[in-house]
Amino acid sequence: MGKRDEDDTSAWSDLQVVTFKPKDLGPEDVELAITHCGVCGSDIHVLKQHWGNTGDKPVIVGHEIVGKVTHVGERVKSVRPGDRVGIGGGLDSCRECRACAAGYENYCPRLVITPNAAHYDGVSTQGGFATGARAHESFVFPIPDGVESRHAASMMCGGLTVFSPLRLYACGPGRKVGVLGIGGVGHYAILFAKAMGAEVYAFTRGTAKAADAREMGADHVVDTTAEGWWEPYNLTLDIIISTIDRLAPGMTLPDILGMLFVHGKFVAVGLPPLDEPLPPVHPFMLGKNGSSLSGTLVGSKSDAQTMLQLAADKHVVPWIEELPMSQAKVALEDLCAVLGDASSGLRSRPMLYDNITD
Amino acid sequence: MGKRDEDDTSAWSDLQVVTFKPKDLGPEDVELAITHCGVCGSDIHVLKQHWGNTGDKPVIVGHEIVGKVTHVGERVKSVRPGDRVGIGGGLDSCRECRACAAGYENYCPRLVITPNAAHYDGVSTQGGFATGARAHESFVFPIPDGVESRHAASMMCGGLTVFSPLRLYACGPGRKVGVLGIGGVGHYAILFAKAMGAEVYAFTRGTAKAADAREMGADHVVDTTAEGWWEPYNLTLDIIISTIDRLAPGMTLPDILGMLFVHGKFVAVGLPPLDEPLPPVHPFMLGKNGSSLSGTLVGSKSDAQTMLQLAADKHVVPWIEELPMSQAKVALEDLCAVLGDASSGLRSRPMLYDNITD
Repeated sequence: MGKRDEDDTSAWSDLQVVTFKPKDLGPEDVELAITHCGVCGSDIHVLKQHWGNTGDKPVIVGHEIVGKVTHVGERVKSVRPGDRVGIGGGLDSCRECRACAAGYENYCPRLVITPNAAHYDGVSTQGGFATGARAHESFVFPIPDGVESRHAASMMCGGLTVFSPLRLYACGPGRKVGVLGIGGVGHYAILFAKAMGAEVYAFTRGTAKAADAREMGADHVVDTTAEGWWEPYNLTLDIIISTIDRLAPGMTLPDILGMLFVHGKFVAVGLPPLDEPLPPVHPFMLGKNGSSLSGTLVGSKSDAQTMLQLAADKHVVPWIEELPMSQAKVALEDLCAVLGDASSGLRSRPMLYDNITD
Repeated sequence: MGKRDEDDTSAWSDLQVVTFKPKDLGPEDVELAITHCGVCGSDIHVLKQHWGNTGDKPVIVGHEIVGKVTHVGERVKSVRPGDRVGIGGGLDSCRECRACAAGYENYCPRLVITPNAAHYDGVSTQGGFATGARAHESFVFPIPDGVESRHAASMMCGGLTVFSPLRLYACGPGRKVGVLGIGGVGHYAILFAKAMGAEVYAFTRGTAKAADAREMGADHVVDTTAEGWWEPYNLTLDIIISTIDRLAPGMTLPDILGMLFVHGKFVAVGLPPLDEPLPPVHPFMLGKNGSSLSGTLVGSKSDAQTMLQLAADKHVVPWIEELPMSQAKVALEDLCAVLGDASSGLRSRPMLYDNITD
């Protein structure tokens, strides 16, 4: 299903069934029959061209893909036909640069992203609202038996995006983690931070999501519409995962950064349109507590495997809504409506499936 | 010597000799007779009231202090009368908060800073352009035999400010460190990064400082006025210590952040006036390589002791100019002239001394 028109994005959710030619199956590539695919805010940003023009070719979005392996290239060792696997925001990388050599293939400057890009052979990349996918082995993540396919799907981007910085910044027992914005991505930050043993503070506008946040595992829920909401938490948090695209009225970066303990990390996971940077930062804001403002880009295969094993071991189960692929338009429009109104009640991330064979 | 007038900062460098009452010597306090004091850009910012009004009281600047211990409180254990010691930007902290308990007393929210503040008993704090100083033991750093007092002075702020983040972010063999701006603080970043075993890249406008930067130990010197100067270093550096107050024309934050390798750290050490924040940051800039934008506030006693021992072990000798205290006005005005013209030749940090008894 693809976007129809080059410049007019008003019909961004009018999908149609298209046929596409996949890349050739290389010796280190894996092909899968897609069974499930999550819906992510990034899909909407791509379809609405917030991150650049998508040209006149069809764009098949979806990058939270789960399926069963159908074919593997001759040098593939980590998976076999029949295995359940996931694919996230990347399909291939150069495998020659320092980032690839260090196991950070997701930061390869020549990263091939899942939809709306090109493979090294020039073939357009397509996403998971399709029946099949091909990717390099290093971007295909085996799913442990303890994790259901329907639960693994949205972990491939929404989950991995928060798990990767939580792992990098040593989330665990004794650490205090703040989660700013409790939507699809924020709910994963609560689930994983809690599963890793941290004390979790959920920050949300109003009280509508408070009960849900507690049920997900938040130890504290803070209403960010209250006067001076940040003050009790000054110099408290080790990590803040910010899943919001922009600060709401009454939220300032100095107040938020001030909640960090010494050397604390603020990780901006939300990716707003290109013309909406963060509010200006003065070095004094960061120097006060030696804090950092960080970004992240999904996660590596090592991150993904560690996350999936944690999910299996600690029974991490995301809150999802399931729809058949024929309802993709409904799923996209509903998610868009939620993202446009951050004060609305929690709307779980829809997850689409089709061609289910297990 | 203090500032004369409350609001008119045009005569900011007209100093006069004043008498002041020090705080009482508490049971954990140390008193020293000052022998040396460095001059730092922060002294100028304070005198020019860039960081806020200084009121109508005399302000004695100087926070790169070295002297000999004259008296100690009854519970002091780490130093004895006659010891050579240093004091930097802080004099006391609450010793009760999580930051103090964790050995980050420099990040205590109730940190008592060296000039232009108040001790807990209400007595004004004064700086090192004086004959004596009193501070809590945790802000008094013994100087090893291998480090001369005249060399230790400017390490107390200029040196510690860069050593602390270099230590925090694991500077050492195999790491690539960029230093942006080669002045008094930048020259310390080169000296210490090199002494810690890193490969050092010095970034400077033009070529006037290139030979000096190499003599300090830089392995690479990059002229930031050249077209596309950053491109050869994309995804290369593990740490960038930025000592500049503002980006010069032709320098953009995305270009600079893009030079960082995966999870690299940009540390903004330069502290511009309050109304001059960094250029806007978009999460995409940081997400591209998972990099961080960080701040820092001088360093802890643990940092200071580790730095001084490194200086002793590796014979780190700063480039300084020495003047008698009677030349304080000249020293301040000369440093101000250099800071106002970042493309001028390297002007080492003057270091003032008086009452020298050793």
